[in-house]
Amino acid sequence: MKSPYALSLLVSLLFLTMYQSFSQSRPRDLGVRFGILPAGPGNAITDVPGVKVGQLTKIEGQDIRTGVTAILPHGGNIFQEKVPAAIFVGNGFGKLAGVTQVQELGNLESPIILTNTLSVAAGIEGVVRYSLAQPGNESVQSMNAVVGETNDGYLNDIRGMHISPEDVLMAIRSAKTGQVEEGNVGAGTGTVCFGWKGGIGTASRKLPESMGGHTVGLLVQTNFGGNLQIAGVPVGEKLGKYPFKDALEKSDGSCMIVVATDAPVLERNLERMAQRAMMGLAKTGGIASNGSGDYVIAFSTHEGLRIPHSIPSQRLQKAEFLGNDDMTALFMAVIEATEEAIINSLFAAESMVGKEDRKIESLPKTQVLDWILEKK
Amino acid sequence: MKSPYALSLLVSLLFLTMYQSFSQSRPRDLGVRFGILPAGPGNAITDVPGVKVGQLTKIEGQDIRTGVTAILPHGGNIFQEKVPAAIFVGNGFGKLAGVTQVQELGNLESPIILTNTLSVAAGIEGVVRYSLAQPGNESVQSMNAVVGETNDGYLNDIRGMHISPEDVLMAIRSAKTGQVEEGNVGAGTGTVCFGWKGGIGTASRKLPESMGGHTVGLLVQTNFGGNLQIAGVPVGEKLGKYPFKDALEKSDGSCMIVVATDAPVLERNLERMAQRAMMGLAKTGGIASNGSGDYVIAFSTHEGLRIPHSIPSQRLQKAEFLGNDDMTALFMAVIEATEEAIINSLFAAESMVGKEDRKIESLPKTQVLDWILEKK
Amino acid sequence: MKSPYALSLLVSLLFLTMYQSFSQSRPRDLGVRFGILPAGPGNAITDVPGVKVGQLTKIEGQDIRTGVTAILPHGGNIFQEKVPAAIFVGNGFGKLAGVTQVQELGNLESPIILTNTLSVAAGIEGVVRYSLAQPGNESVQSMNAVVGETNDGYLNDIRGMHISPEDVLMAIRSAKTGQVEEGNVGAGTGTVCFGWKGGIGTASRKLPESMGGHTVGLLVQTNFGGNLQIAGVPVGEKLGKYPFKDALEKSDGSCMIVVATDAPVLERNLERMAQRAMMGLAKTGGIASNGSGDYVIAFSTHEGLRIPHSIPSQRLQKAEFLGNDDMTALFMAVIEATEEAIINSLFAAESMVGKEDRKIESLPKTQVLDWILEKK
Amino acid sequence: MKSPYALSLLVSLLFLTMYQSFSQSRPRDLGVRFGILPAGPGNAITDVPGVKVGQLTKIEGQDIRTGVTAILPHGGNIFQEKVPAAIFVGNGFGKLAGVTQVQELGNLESPIILTNTLSVAAGIEGVVRYSLAQPGNESVQSMNAVVGETNDGYLNDIRGMHISPEDVLMAIRSAKTGQVEEGNVGAGTGTVCFGWKGGIGTASRKLPESMGGHTVGLLVQTNFGGNLQIAGVPVGEKLGKYPFKDALEKSDGSCMIVVATDAPVLERNLERMAQRAMMGLAKTGGIASNGSGDYVIAFSTHEGLRIPHSIPSQRLQKAEFLGNDDMTALFMAVIEATEEAIINSLFAAESMVGKEDRKIESLPKTQVLDWILEKK
Repeated sequence: MKSPYALSLLVSLLFLTMYQSFSQSRPRDLGVRFGILPAGPGNAITDVPGVKVGQLTKIEGQDIRTGVTAILPHGGNIFQEKVPAAIFVGNGFGKLAGVTQVQELGNLESPIILTNTLSVAAGIEGVVRYSLAQPGNESVQSMNAVVGETNDGYLNDIRGMHISPEDVLMAIRSAKTGQVEEGNVGAGTGTVCFGWKGGIGTASRKLPESMGGHTVGLLVQTNFGGNLQIAGVPVGEKLGKYPFKDALEKSDGSCMIVVATDAPVLERNLERMAQRAMMGLAKTGGIASNGSGDYVIAFSTHEGLRIPHSIPSQRLQKAEFLGNDDMTALFMAVIEATEEAIINSLFAAESMVGKEDRKIESLPKTQVLDWILEKK
Repeated sequence: MKSPYALSLLVSLLFLTMYQSFSQSRPRDLGVRFGILPAGPGNAITDVPGVKVGQLTKIEGQDIRTGVTAILPHGGNIFQEKVPAAIFVGNGFGKLAGVTQVQELGNLESPIILTNTLSVAAGIEGVVRYSLAQPGNESVQSMNAVVGETNDGYLNDIRGMHISPEDVLMAIRSAKTGQVEEGNVGAGTGTVCFGWKGGIGTASRKLPESMGGHTVGLLVQTNFGGNLQIAGVPVGEKLGKYPFKDALEKSDGSCMIVVATDAPVLERNLERMAQRAMMGLAKTGGIASNGSGDYVIAFSTHEGLRIPHSIPSQRLQKAEFLGNDDMTALFMAVIEATEEAIINSLFAAESMVGKEDRKIESLPKTQVLDWILEKK
Repeated sequence: MKSPYALSLLVSLLFLTMYQSFSQSRPRDLGVRFGILPAGPGNAITDVPGVKVGQLTKIEGQDIRTGVTAILPHGGNIFQEKVPAAIFVGNGFGKLAGVTQVQELGNLESPIILTNTLSVAAGIEGVVRYSLAQPGNESVQSMNAVVGETNDGYLNDIRGMHISPEDVLMAIRSAKTGQVEEGNVGAGTGTVCFGWKGGIGTASRKLPESMGGHTVGLLVQTNFGGNLQIAGVPVGEKLGKYPFKDALEKSDGSCMIVVATDAPVLERNLERMAQRAMMGLAKTGGIASNGSGDYVIAFSTHEGLRIPHSIPSQRLQKAEFLGNDDMTALFMAVIEATEEAIINSLFAAESMVGKEDRKIESLPKTQVLDWILEKK
Repeated sequence: MKSPYALSLLVSLLFLTMYQSFSQSRPRDLGVRFGILPAGPGNAITDVPGVKVGQLTKIEGQDIRTGVTAILPHGGNIFQEKVPAAIFVGNGFGKLAGVTQVQELGNLESPIILTNTLSVAAGIEGVVRYSLAQPGNESVQSMNAVVGETNDGYLNDIRGMHISPEDVLMAIRSAKTGQVEEGNVGAGTGTVCFGWKGGIGTASRKLPESMGGHTVGLLVQTNFGGNLQIAGVPVGEKLGKYPFKDALEKSDGSCMIVVATDAPVLERNLERMAQRAMMGLAKTGGIASNGSGDYVIAFSTHEGLRIPHSIPSQRLQKAEFLGNDDMTALFMAVIEATEEAIINSLFAAESMVGKEDRKIESLPKTQVLDWILEKK
C-alpha cells in the first residue's frame, strides 16, 4: 500500500462494504414495508436537517454492557436557541428528567440524552457541564437537562453505575449528522426487546410535497415487552415468545422515543405528534406494561420557530406554523416511523452475552423475514 | 299455536337462529384471532357481570340515521352507588361531557350515553331526568352525566338534532345484560369507519385464573379513519382505501370506547387501562387524526369498590384492590379487546344509504376473510 | 310628563342615578384596593375591546332564582373566527362542558355560557342552535359548546330545570359591550358565597405601557365557600362565619372564572394565566373545597391570533405573540382582578329570599368597609 | 467543668436557650395567626409522626451559600415500604426529578431531596447510592429519586456545583424527627424570597378530633417573588418592595413545597391536597411568576397505606382511606400551613452576604410585626 490514493480507495471500499452490510440488513432494504408513506433518504432521524446523533458504547469485561445516545436538535448553542418541544408520557414508570419544564415552557434547551436507569444523574451532570462550558453561556445559572433511560440491568451491571458525566460529554461531542448506527450501540447496548436483543433504532418519513414535504425522523431505545408483531405478522406467537409465557419476556423494560421534524409545528401539536408514537409502538405488539417507562420527546427544528433565550421585554415572537388541520399526515408519519424504528432496532441488534454470563439472542431474522415476505 | 310449550319452543328456535346468524358473522367465530388471551363467553362488554347495554336506533325517512347507546355499570341506582372510573383522552376533538368530574373524583355516577355530536345536550338532559326521577334520588341537586358522541353527519341529518331526551331515557330503560347488538344500531347507526360502514362493536377478554380470572369488556362506537389493518393484514391498502387517497376516507370521525372490568381496580389504574385502549385502536390502523374525538371511559364493577353517595364524616372507605404490578395482563386484555371490538363493528355493519342518497358500503367481508384466513 | 324632551331628561337622570349607585357601591370606588396594578376604565371584563356580556335573570314566584350569563369573545361569528383559549381545572367537581376540545385544539369556537348545574344541557342546546343558525354556518355539523355552572339549589328550585335553550339564546343575543351588571343577575342570581349572597362579579387590570399596555378582564360566578378575607382583612372570622363553624357555610358551591385579554397570548400561556386565577380566588379565602367546581376559561381577543375555521391545506398560520418571559405581569393582573371580581360580586349582591322561604343575607357591607378602610 | 453532670446541665441550658430563641422568633409565638385551625405541637412537618428532616448547610468562603434538605416519610426502608404520594406542578419552570413515576404509580420510594438548581444530578446520585446500599435493597436495579431545587445563584456560586452526592448522603443520614431548623439552612441557605432573605420554613395543622384529628405538616424552600402579604398586611407595598418596582425583586426564583400527613389519603386526594398548597402560597402574595419552579409533593405516612415493593401476584392491597367528602378540612389545613411555613422562613432567615459581596437583607421583622399586630 504505497500511495495515499490506494489508501483512500481502500477506505472507500471498506466504507461501502460497511454501508452496504448496514443498509442490507435493514428490513426496508429487504422488502419489508411499514405503512404507505415514503421514508426519507437515510430512513433515519438525521433525515431531519441539522439533527445530530452521538453515541458512546461501553462494553467492558463480562459485566458492562451500556452506553449513551445523545440527540441534538441542531448544531448551534441549544440553550441560546431553544426549539419548540413537547413530551408525552406513555407510561410513567421511568426516570426521564426535565419533563415539567418542557411541558410548561414548550421548549427544549439542551441535547437529549438516553442512557441506563441508574445513570440519569450522570446524564444530567454531563449536559449541565456541557452547557455551562459552551461559549455564550458564561452567565447561565439554570439548565433543563432532558435525560431518559431504560433499564439494561439484565445484561449490564447497572448497579455499578458505569456511565460518567465525561462519557455523556463524549457522546454529545461525537454527535454528527448522517447515518445513525443501530442495534447494540449507545444507550441500546444492553437492552432487551420482546425477549430478543433490542437496541437503538431509527427511521423517517418524508411527506409528499402535496402534504407539505416535511420530514419526520424517529430514534428509539427499545427495551420493552409485549406480543411481537412485525408488519402484521404475529412473530411473537410464531416464535413462542410472548407475554405470560415465560419468565424472561416478563422483563418490563421501557421505550424511549425521540421524534424530530422540520415541519413548522408548535409545542401543542408537537405533543399530539408525540402521543401518536405510542400508537406506532402498539403496532409492534408493545403493551406499555406496568413496569415500562415509555416516553416520547418531540421537537421541531424549523428555523423560524427558534426561541432565543434572551428576548427584549415586550418583543413579540413572530412565527408561521401549521394549524391543527394539517396535523393528520404528520401523525401518520410518526406512527409509521415509530413502528419501523423499533423493528429496525431488532434487526440491527446482534446476540449478546453479558452480566453473569446471561445471553440474549438476536431475533431469528432469516426465519422472520421469510414469514413476512411470503405473506406479502 | 295452542300451547305455551309450543310458543316457548318457537321463541327458542327463533333465538337460536338469531344468535347463530349473529355469532356466525363475528370474525372470531369465523376463525380470526386477535391476540392470545381468551374471550369471555359472549365476547361482549356484558361478560362483565352486571353491565347492561341499551340501544335506541333511529332510522326514519331518507335522512335520519342516528341513535343512542347506553351503558350501565350495574343495575342499581348508580348515583347512590358510584363505581370507580377514569377517562383517557386519546384525541380531544370531541364533546364528551362529564370528563373533569370523573377525573377529579375518580368515579362514575350515571349511565354512560353515546350518541351523535349535536345531541350531547339531549344525552345530558336524558341522564339528568333519569337520575332525578330514580327512587332514592329525591333530594339530588347535582348529577354528572357522561355523554360521548361521534359525528354521523355524513349519513344522518345531524343538524336536525333528532335525538330527544326521551330517546335517551328509552335507551337507558331498555338496557339489559346478555347479548349486545352490533353494527348499525344505537349510536353506531350512521357512523363510518375507515371509509366503510362502522357502528357499535363489542368484545371481551377473560384472564386465566392464574392471572386473577378477571373479565375485561369493551364497547366501541366506530367512526374514525386511518389505514385499516385486520389481524395484521393491510386491508386498507389491499382494498385501495386509505388516508390521503380519496376524499371520503379523510372524514375525520371519532371513536368512543367504553371499558368495563370486574377486576378490583381503583381509578388511577383504570386510567392506565383506558390509555391502553388507544393502543388497541392503533392495531386496527387508526391514527387518531386531527379531527377525531377519541375517548376511553373505564370503570370497575367490583362490588367491594362501590362508593356510596353519602358516607358519614370520617367513615373510612375499605377497599381491596390490585396493585400496579398486576396491571399488565389487564392492559393486554384491553388492547386485544379494543382491536377485536372495532373489527367486530365493521363486520356487523351493513351497507347503508342515508342523507342526500349517500351510500356507505359495508366492508367486503368475504374478500377480507379470505385474505386473513389464508395468511394464518 | 308632556314632552319627549322631559322624558328623555328623566331617563337620563334615572340612568345617572343608577350608574352612580352602581359605581359607588363597588369597593374600588369606596377606596378599597386589591394589589398594585391599575384597573381598566370600567373595571370589567368588557374593558377588553370587543368582549360582550349578556345576562338573563329568572326570578319567578318563590322558587325560581336562576339565570344565564353569556360571554362572547368578539362580536363576529366565533365559530368561523375562533380565538386562542385554554381551560384550567381548579377543582373538577363540576359539569363544565367543552373542556377537552379547548385543551386539545387550543381554541374557543362558541360563546361561553354560565348557568346552573342542572341546566348545562339547555346551555349546550342553546349554543348549538345559536351557532347552527348563524349566517355562514349553514354547513356546520360540529360545535364545541363551552358551558359552565354552579349550583344555585339552595335558593333555586334547581330540580325544576327552569332554564330553556331559548333563555340561553336570549342571553347570547342580549350581549353587549360596556358596563356589566353584577350581583344577583344572570347565572349569579341564586348563588351563595362564603355564606353570604354571591353572584356575578367583574374587574380588570390595565398594564402600564412599559409592560405592554395590555388589558386583562375577569368575570366570575361566585358560589363557593372558605374563610372570607377582603383586602387582607379576615372578614369571615370577624363576622363569625367560616368553614366548619355552621352548616350553611359548608355549602360547597363552586366558582366559574372567565379571563379575557387583548394581549397576544397563545393557548399554552393562556392556560398559565388561567391557573393564576385560582391564586386570586385563594386571596379571598376560597379553599376549593371538595365539592367545589372551580374552573378558569381564558381567551385572547388579539385580532392577529384569530383562527379561521377553514384554512387551505398547508397554509401557515402567521402569528406574533408574547413569549414566556413577558407573562409575569399578566399573571399578576389575573390574580389581582380575580380577587377584586369576587369581592365585587359580594358587594353587588343584595339579600335574597328563595326556595322554601330560605334567605341568604348580603354581606354587611358598611361594617366590612369600616374594617377594611380603618386598616389602610 | 469537672463533672459529666455539669456538662449535661450546660448542654441543656444551651439547648433551651437555642430552642427559646428559635421558638420566640416564630410569628405564631409572637401572636401572628394564619387561619383558624390549630397548629401541631412543634408547628413543623415533623409533627407528622415518623417524618424526618435532615439538612446540610454549605457556607464556605465568600461564594458558597448552598445546601441540601432531605425529607424522609418514615424511618424504614422507603424503597421496600413505599408511601402513597402525588405531585402537583404549580409552575413547571424547574428541574424536579422523579415527577412522572410518582404520578403514574401513585407512590414515593425515596427520600425527597431539595437542593440548588445545578445540583439535581448530585441529589439523584446521592439518593441512588443511599438506596442501593440500604440493607434489603441488594437486588434493586431501579430507583426513582425525587429531587427538587430552587436557584440560589444570586448569593451562591451555583455554577461551581458545590454539592456532592456525599453531601446528599450526609443530609439523609442526619435526618431526625423533632424540631426542624428554619431560615438559612440546608437547601434554603442561599435563597431569596420577595426580595428578602428566604430559606427553609415549616408549619403544621392538627385537625380537631371531630374532623378526624389528622395532622398536616409542611416544609418549604422559599426562593420566589411577588407582592408580599403577611397575615393580610400588604407588607411588600408598605416596604416599597414589590414586583416591577426594582430589579432585584424580579428575580424569579421558585418554591418547593413538601406536604406530609398521617391522614389515610390515597394518591388522588393527595394530589388535590398538593394543589391547595399553591393557594396558601398565593396568600403570601406569591404570583408563580414565569421563571418560578413551583412544585408540591404530598405523601401520606399512614401505616395501613404502605405499599410493599414486592407483592405476590394477585395479592390484593387492603386499604382504609378517607373519601372525597372528608377532604375539605385537609385542604384548609394545607392552605393555612403553607402560608405560615413561607412566612416562617422569612422570619427565621437572617441577612446574608454572598457571591460578589452581594447582600440580601432579612425582612425587617420588628417593623413588620408592629404592622401585623396593630391590625389585629
